[in-house]
This record gives sequence, C-alpha cells and structure tokens, in this order.
Amino acid sequence: MNAEIQIADERLMANALRALAMDAVQAANSGHPGMPMGMADVTAVLFNRFVTIDPAAHQWPDRDRFVLSAGHGSMLLYAVNHLLGYPDMGMDQVRAFRQMGSRTAGHPEYGHAQGVEVTTGPLGQGIATAVGMALAERMGAARFPGLVDHWTWVIAGDGCLMEGISHEAIDMAGHLGLGRLVVLWDDNRITIDGGTDLSTSTDQMARFAASGWHVLSCDGHDAAQIGDAITAARADPRPSLIACRTLIGCGAPNKQGGHDVHGAPLGAEEIAATRAHLGWDAPPFEIPAGVYAAWARIAARGAKARMDWEARLATSPNLEEFAAALARDPAPLAPAMAAYKAQLLADRPKVATRKASEMALGVVNAALPFTIGGSADLTGSNLTRSKGMRPVTRDDYSGSYLHYGIREHGMAAAMNGIVLHGLFRPYGGTFLAFADYCRPAIRLAALMGVPTVFVMTHDSIGLGEDGPTHQPVEHLASLRAIPNLTVIRPCDAVETAEAWEMAMAATDGPVLLVLSRQNLPLLRSEAAENLTARGAYLLRDPGARDVTLIATGSEVEIAMTAAEALADEGIDAAVISAPSFEAFAAQPAAARAALLGSAPRIGIEAAIRQGWDLFLRPEDGFVGMSGFGASAPAPELYRHFGITPDSVASLAKTLIKAN
Amino acid sequence: MNAEIQIADERLMANALRALAMDAVQAANSGHPGMPMGMADVTAVLFNRFVTIDPAAHQWPDRDRFVLSAGHGSMLLYAVNHLLGYPDMGMDQVRAFRQMGSRTAGHPEYGHAQGVEVTTGPLGQGIATAVGMALAERMGAARFPGLVDHWTWVIAGDGCLMEGISHEAIDMAGHLGLGRLVVLWDDNRITIDGGTDLSTSTDQMARFAASGWHVLSCDGHDAAQIGDAITAARADPRPSLIACRTLIGCGAPNKQGGHDVHGAPLGAEEIAATRAHLGWDAPPFEIPAGVYAAWARIAARGAKARMDWEARLATSPNLEEFAAALARDPAPLAPAMAAYKAQLLADRPKVATRKASEMALGVVNAALPFTIGGSADLTGSNLTRSKGMRPVTRDDYSGSYLHYGIREHGMAAAMNGIVLHGLFRPYGGTFLAFADYCRPAIRLAALMGVPTVFVMTHDSIGLGEDGPTHQPVEHLASLRAIPNLTVIRPCDAVETAEAWEMAMAATDGPVLLVLSRQNLPLLRSEAAENLTARGAYLLRDPGARDVTLIATGSEVEIAMTAAEALADEGIDAAVISAPSFEAFAAQPAAARAALLGSAPRIGIEAAIRQGWDLFLRPEDGFVGMSGFGASAPAPELYRHFGITPDSVASLAKTLIKAN
Repeated sequence: MNAEIQIADERLMANALRALAMDAVQAANSGHPGMPMGMADVTAVLFNRFVTIDPAAHQWPDRDRFVLSAGHGSMLLYAVNHLLGYPDMGMDQVRAFRQMGSRTAGHPEYGHAQGVEVTTGPLGQGIATAVGMALAERMGAARFPGLVDHWTWVIAGDGCLMEGISHEAIDMAGHLGLGRLVVLWDDNRITIDGGTDLSTSTDQMARFAASGWHVLSCDGHDAAQIGDAITAARADPRPSLIACRTLIGCGAPNKQGGHDVHGAPLGAEEIAATRAHLGWDAPPFEIPAGVYAAWARIAARGAKARMDWEARLATSPNLEEFAAALARDPAPLAPAMAAYKAQLLADRPKVATRKASEMALGVVNAALPFTIGGSADLTGSNLTRSKGMRPVTRDDYSGSYLHYGIREHGMAAAMNGIVLHGLFRPYGGTFLAFADYCRPAIRLAALMGVPTVFVMTHDSIGLGEDGPTHQPVEHLASLRAIPNLTVIRPCDAVETAEAWEMAMAATDGPVLLVLSRQNLPLLRSEAAENLTARGAYLLRDPGARDVTLIATGSEVEIAMTAAEALADEGIDAAVISAPSFEAFAAQPAAARAALLGSAPRIGIEAAIRQGWDLFLRPEDGFVGMSGFGASAPAPELYRHFGITPDSVASLAKTLIKAN
Repeated sequence: MNAEIQIADERLMANALRALAMDAVQAANSGHPGMPMGMADVTAVLFNRFVTIDPAAHQWPDRDRFVLSAGHGSMLLYAVNHLLGYPDMGMDQVRAFRQMGSRTAGHPEYGHAQGVEVTTGPLGQGIATAVGMALAERMGAARFPGLVDHWTWVIAGDGCLMEGISHEAIDMAGHLGLGRLVVLWDDNRITIDGGTDLSTSTDQMARFAASGWHVLSCDGHDAAQIGDAITAARADPRPSLIACRTLIGCGAPNKQGGHDVHGAPLGAEEIAATRAHLGWDAPPFEIPAGVYAAWARIAARGAKARMDWEARLATSPNLEEFAAALARDPAPLAPAMAAYKAQLLADRPKVATRKASEMALGVVNAALPFTIGGSADLTGSNLTRSKGMRPVTRDDYSGSYLHYGIREHGMAAAMNGIVLHGLFRPYGGTFLAFADYCRPAIRLAALMGVPTVFVMTHDSIGLGEDGPTHQPVEHLASLRAIPNLTVIRPCDAVETAEAWEMAMAATDGPVLLVLSRQNLPLLRSEAAENLTARGAYLLRDPGARDVTLIATGSEVEIAMTAAEALADEGIDAAVISAPSFEAFAAQPAAARAALLGSAPRIGIEAAIRQGWDLFLRPEDGFVGMSGFGASAPAPELYRHFGITPDSVASLAKTLIKAN
C-alpha cells in the first residue's frame, strides 16, 4: 500500500478509536478517555501493520497477544475489538460500557469478552503477565517449531512503569532475552495527581536498557515514526521498549495534555469541539463504512495467517503433542498417582510436606509434559525442582524449570501469563509468609478463573528460628478470604499427592498449596479415593464420639496424638483432617453436618482462628495462634504457644465436662 | 590516625564480626554466616570512620540510622552492636542467637534490641524503609536546622535489589534528592539458587544512575577503597549506591564464594580452617581487648557528638517545638476535635467518609504540626491533602505533603521509615483494593508496633463502574487478620473524626482507615464520647429488641433504613455500628455480650463474612458479598448483590420467625 494512503487510513482508524472512547465514556458518565485518545495513533499503526489475530478464531493458539497493561484505558481495547469485528463486541456492547452485565466492564476482564487476553487495571500486572506470555511463546516455539511463533504487544502507562512489579518483570524479560515482547509506553508525562515530575525523575529508557532491553522512542502521533519504531523493535533480538511521546486526550482541543482528561468524561461541549477538531462528522456510536473496511483488512490478514497455520499444523509431526499441550489434560496422571500413593502407604515415609511435594512432583512432571516448575530463589527450600528438570535459559527455552529470582510478585504474574497463553501449567514456590508479596497477582488469577498453582512452603511457626517476619500466622486466613482460590494444606505425603492431583485437575481457578518445613508422619491408611478433594474427612473414627478434633497440615499429627492420649483415658475423639476449607464448603450441607457431628469440637491450626467458623461454633475450642510468632527452634515454639497434644487433650476434657 | 594502623585495626574489627557471626550461627545450628562474613570489611570501615551513634543513648534523635536491609545477615548487626557496647547486647545475647526469649532473633526485630532501627528480613523492606528515614531527616532538617543532620546507611543484598519495592524506593529517593542516604550493596553475585546469573542480568549501577543516584564501586575487602568510596558518597548531593564487590562468606577458605555458605552453619571443620586462615586465635565468644578498644573509639566519638548536639539543643530557639515533635503528643487535637464534632452534629453533612476524612484532616493537620500527608497518586480520590498543605520537594523539604507516585508498597514502607525516625506522624492513601500491593509493609508496621496510618478509600462495590479489579471484597477480612493492626471503617462524618482521633492517639501499632467513595448521611446524634473507640456500640436503641442489626461503614445507613422499615411493621430492631472489630474484641466479654444481646442478629457489610463470627452465631444472618463484584453504577451493584434495606428486613423477619 502507498505510504501516504496508509497513513491517511490510520488517521481515520485512530479517530474512530477516539470517537468511540469519548462517546462511550460520556454515555457511561464514567471512565477514562485520556489514554485511549492519547494512544489511538500508536494503536492504529500497531494493529494496521503488525498485529496478527483472527477475530473469528479468538482462541487461535498462535495469535499475537495484545495486553492493555494500562487497563483503565479499557475503551481503547473495546473500540479495537469492535472495529476488528469480534463477534461478541457489537456496538450494543460499546454503548453499554461499564453497565451491569455488559462485556465492556470498567477494566478489561478476561473471560468477559473475546480478545481480552488478561484482566488488567491493577497497575503493572499487565506488563508482568505479558512477560509470562512472551516466555510461554518462546518455550512453545522450542517445543513446537513452526507452530508457535508470535508476538506479545503491551501498551503500558507511567503507572505500570512506576509500580515495583515492573522492575521484576523487565529484569526477568531482559535476562531471558524475550525478543518477541514489545512494550509501547504511553509517555504522556501525566499522572492522576499532575505531571509525572511531581513524583518521578527516572529515565525509563536508561532503566530498561540497564536490564538488557532494546529501547527506542517515537512521536506517538506520527504514524511514520511509530511504524519505523515498531519495525526496528521487531528486528532486534532483545525485548523492546518504545517510548511513545503522546498527548493525553489527544484530539480534545481544550483538555488534551492535562490530567483532568485522564479519568472523567470530556463533557458534551468538549466532545463537540473534539469532533470539529478531528473533522469527525459521524454521530456517536456510528462508524463510517470506510473505517470499518480498513480495520477489516487486519482481520482478513489474520484469518489468512490462521488458515496457513492450520495447514502447517495438519501436517506437523508434533500435531498430537501440540493438541495434548493445548488440552492440558491431567488424565495421564491418574495411574501413576495411584501407584505412587500405594507405594506411600507401604513405605509410610515421615517427610515434610514440602519434601512430599517434591516426591509427588516427580510423578506429576513425568506424567504431564506441560508442567513448568519454578521458585523465587528458594528452589532448595521449596523443593519445586523434581529430578531431571532442566532450567529455561535465554539460550535454550526447551527446559521446564524457571529460576524466577527474588521476585515473588513477578513470578506470580508471569505464571498467570504462562497459564493464559495456553500450552503450559506452571507452578512456582516461595515461603508462605511471602504470599503477601504476590497477593495482587494471586487475586488476579482468582478473578480471571485461571489455574495457576502457587507452592507455599515453611507454612507456620514450624519454620523455627527465622522468626516472626518469616512465620505465617494470618496468611491462611487471608488467602482463604480470596474468592475462587483453593487453598490446600495437606497433613502427610498422601494428602500432598492428592493436593497435586487437585491442582492439576483445576481448570477454573488457582490452587495454593501450603506445605510444612518440618517432617510429618504418614497418617493415612488408605488412598483409593482422593479424600483431600472432599476438603475435610474423618481420619480417625472412634465410632461414638465424645469430642471431634479438626486440624490441618502439620497439626493433624498433634490431633492424632491427642486422640490417642484421650483414648487412654477412655475418651473417644474423632479426628477430622481438613486440608481445604473451600472444598469442604462446597460439600452439601447435610454431608458437612454429618461429618462434624454434635460432640464438642476443637480446631487445631498453627495460625489465627479467623475463618474457622466454617467448622466451629462459639462454644467450641481452638488451639492455635493469636499473634505473631517468635524466633526459636520449632519444637520450642510449639510448646511456647501451646500448640501441643497436651493442650488439645486438656481443652477436650474441659469442653466435654462443660457439654 | 596513621592510615596503615587504621587499616590494620579495621581488619581485626572485621574479623571479630566474622568470628562472632560464624560462631553464633554454629552454636544455634541455624542462621546465615555468608553475608556477615562477606560484608565484615565494609561494615568495619563504615562504622570506624563514618557512623555517628552513641550506644549509651540509643534513642538520640540525631544519630545516624543504620539499616540492615539484608536482614538474614542479622548476626552482622548483633556483632556490631555487641562490639560497640550497647548495654543490652552482652555476649550472653550473642550466645543465645535465635533462641527463645533472646534479643538476637533470627532476623533483626525492632524493639527487641537497642540499635535495631527497623525489622528486616522480608527482602527490600529495609531499603524502602530507609528511604522514609532519609526523607524524615531532610524534613526534620528543614524544620529544625542544626538539630537534625545525620546520615542513613543501608546494607542491601541482591535480593533487596531484585524485589520490586526497590524500584519504587530508589525512584522516590532519586526524585527527592535524598543525598544523605548511602546504600552499600553486597555485590557478591550469589543468590540462594546459585549465581546471580541464574536469574538477573540487570546492570544495577546503570539502573540506579537512571533514577538519579550517584553510583560508584569498590573492592569490598579493600579498606582504602571502601573508605574512599564512602567519602565520595558523602561528598555527592545525590543518594549514593556503592557496589561493594565481595566474596560471600569471606574468610572461610573452602566455602567462601559459594551459595552453600549463605544460610547454613559452616561446620566445626570449616570454622577451624577459618580461624587459621584469618589468624584469629580467640576462642568462640571471646574478643581480644584491643578489638573491643577499637570499637569503643566509635562509641566515644558518638558520645561526644551526642553531647555537642545536646548543648546545641539546649540553646536552640526550636527547643520546645522539637520536643513536641519528638513527643508526637495528640493532646492539642482534643479541643479542636470536640468543636468540630459539635459542628458536625449541627450541620449533619451527607458526605463520603473519604470527604469526611478530608474535613477531619483539616482539624488534625492544623492542630498537630507533625503530621505528614500523602497519597500514591490518588490525592483527589483519597482526599488526603487538607487545605494549606504544601508538597515536599527536593528543593524544599519544609512542606507536609508527599506525592508518593504510583507506588503503594514504597509509600507504605517509606511511611514506616518516617514513623520510625521519630519526628513525624505520616499517613498515606490509596484504594482499599490496593492494600494488597502494600501488605508486606503494613504487616511489618504491625509486627514492629509502630503507628503508621494507612488511608484506604473506595472501600467496596460502592465504587461502582471501575469493577471487580478495584472493588475490595476480601480486603477487610484479610486486613483484620493481621495481628496488631487496627482497622476502622466509619459510617459517617462523626465516626470518621473519631477514627482520626484514634489514629493520632495510637502508639503501638498501625491504624488503617477504610473509607467510602459514596456519600453517607450523618447518623450520630451525640458525640461527647468517642464511641468508635469502643469498636461497636448501640446506634439505634429500640429498648426491647426483636432483632439486632450490626453493620459497618456504608452499610450502617442500610441497617438504619431497614430498622425504620421494620418499625413500621411493629418489629423492634437495634442497630449496632461496628467500626472496628479489633477495638470491640478488646472490650470485656461481659460488655460485648450485653451489647449484642440475645435476639437474632444480622451482620451487614459489603464484603465477605469471614471474621464476622466475632458478632454472629451460626444461626445468625449475614447480608454481604460471597464473591467478586462487577462493573456497574454503585446503586445497581448494591441491588444486584442484595445488600439493601429490603434484604435485611426480609432476613430479619425470617430469623425472628425461626427464633
């Protein structure tokens, strides 16, 4: 195409984005017109010349991934997807921006609309998730040459680059040489409080260069410069940052360039002035046919690429393996796990559940080639690297283990990106106390409903001498609070194996495994059914009961010991192992009531009581923590805080007497 | 002093640190010898030539602040403090490293031992907290010239610099030109998993330079180079990063330089080899008198500086004002608040509690000159800047408002540093959903027991169209789970004023205010007593009760409306406003029971039920959320999720019937 015609087209394509954004925000009387209008030219050029997607096949595995990290500019994405012709993004959806039940939520929500690759809005998450996608692309390309070969594009704002997670993400991307990742930075020098000079002096280009990125800049309103910059980015083997110098709200003659245009409707008067300024005559929510036609050419190009790819797939020697990766079917795990659990019952190993997890991972990773392990620099502590796993490096992406570095947050977001990409099931480890560092990304996995697996070891005061900074106390409660996150705290090697089965079977939400540092005996006597999946079950059944002891993880052993001691005194104690509150809450009420029984109950967990009302009534007892831990050897800490079989037995007798 | 003698002294001083670290870790059979041994030379030179502290007056306000950001190297700090002669750090404490009840916890714990300026261990927190301290120093210097004039020294490891929070911290420090901050980076190229080249390629010097830092490097085992580098750092007006090239575990001839020396005892054999290698003949836990004498010279220098300072203080025109700042006494607030609350009762404004917070801050900030406001780039949303507050800038530190940028985590840690420094009471705002971003720093404030104030607005689905990424659902529960954190969610302008009174009166733990975006009516009819401080109280007393409605924040209005509707049907509903669960839990059990009564109860909060068992029995009801929110106008969301007076009244009738 003639370059001048192309640029003229792109100006119209961009103005269509501007018009839809300002009109939808105005109609909703809520939203952010500044970013979509400022980045409209960059977006038009990017899609017109570079992006390969097929709106008619939105799950095509080898599509380019487009991530709007600056998620508040959601109308930019909705406008693009409407103009590209995504079947679920009709003008009715654009008109219903930010209204109940629409696909056009205030921030882009994964799963609500086709072409939304990730939920964004919490700043920095998009760019960090995109690093995972770009990494998944390289890992996929190493395994399936010719079938995985696409770009990951990100639009990020100043907020994304100021957030700490961006440091973790760009360091990781630079280190791993993710050359298929291009970040277009909306360099508008405006934040909500005012100019960026209010709060930052960082030279972003120098900062990215320091982390091994290719950096370049362009006038974000000059199509030729934009095109040249993206072309150069594609030619460089490093990940690229393009600083796009833009005017926030570009096109609104009286408001552009100021922070008032960031997050409020322009108002009828300014919208009229913008129409005049842009020469945009079409009424709100009407797009000239010529503009639709220009955007349709992008879809047509994508459709052709997708069909070419399908032809390649059909004749690929990797066809079956690729399909298996896409399906991420855990079925092959079942027989291996059954054999492994039978062996556990025979061997009865006394190991920490983090060690049991390593043993289970030996089975999981052998049976399921699509798992990707990793740890935030605690491999030898989290025990996440099973035998034979090779690390992924910038020179060889064919491995299956990631040294994420001391970057819990970046790891969690990257794992979300790897899951979203579609070919792998990642899991990654850190200490449970540092779940706080990755909490925003854990929440996002739960909100998106994607099965990222978080491996959290050193799960209580049982970690001992490292002390209260490293000892989780409130973390179980705070993680159980996150909707749609399944938390599993197994008590022995069998439950740990079952927890991994659950993690690999999960499809619609993240799973978080909570594992001990200290050794724990094997408590289970049979393993035919995955009892962990029930959430809670009777581990010790005395028949009639005087008291019911309910415990999780490392405290189940304490409950069992207490029950034996009580038996010596003629008191019948049932013991319920409760590895997953969420799974238990999903059981029918009658089943739950039957399991819990009517006898007095005691909950036992080396953590705070919050959340235990799932099991306990006000008159029931609890043996656990009520404040921060301390630094000392673990057995001393358990004694100091009174989390012992003696405490449990003594409380049981008190409750039975009072009953 | 002759330079050669000085260097010889410093070698011995450093070897004393090495010996104490390796022997204490060995005795505890737990801990991290690698960092203390690697950074011993740097530490000896730093203290010997530059640090000004007086161990006999550990709270001297103008002391240098030394922050061990790499907190796992705690034995380095304990060894320094022992050798300097801190009265509470006798050899008995060093021998009891990591044992129950000792001051020498696994990681340095603020408040456990003198000379521990901040709790560290969660990586990156130390450097980010130190930025707050260095900022407080500059703000103090601007207000009290001649009385505040000291340095903030940080030892940080690779972990600290890989964590995202470090980006937020260094950008902030560079932007604010905190030239009195010097970070000594233990550039040992080792992480737990192996060499740093496993996970990072960032050129840290270039990265810090990009954020406006002065950067330089030295051989971390060459005293002359170390001294020259620190001298140059002090001469430069920018914050300085000194890359100290070190050998981890330096001195252990067979283990130094490897990652095995990071976090495990050296073992008896290697300890013997180390003694031989260093020529260190003294038995474990014995220090030659000459070495003590060398360290004592540092203390003597500090004591002299402190006495000179006290003489300056005695004649300073700012003496009284300085003492008031140090005391941070909230007493002057009482009369102004009483008048303000009386005016509220007269005016009965219907405002969002974030707006009520701004109004209360007008009173607080006028009465208490030591408050420092701020927001993570949401000033106009959090409403944290009261009238007349001037921003703090690199050119003028005399203001009282901080534009923290889009850096929730860095803000929270910096606020901890400002509190710890001792002259100011900082508060800072973001959206409640983004409490997740700063959670590790909130936890640290709670663990340290320092009264940082977190202002969290947009506290529920009531924020409307921004949708579920921005709508807190589990955040109240997850924050209430943190021990020693007081969460307050006021229902109107009077409770908001009372919440601020509580926040300013707090001395031993952080306070987190949870505020609405949407307008709320004034519900209180009297304000003589701070009822919010009770945690929960009877807002509507019908005398005899058929049902008790318990609500917080924006849902108290719903409870009151429901109570009126029930009254129309002849049903007597009491309404309890419960702004702070922690304050209520601290009330005597009898008072709590009396308030709650025996009638059926309904809890009402636009959040999950977890934690509500403080008020509710299994048979009681709850009107709130059970999953993520949605994007739509706020009133529609309340209807959609059934959080309405009708739902409450209907549930009340059901419960009364069943009772």
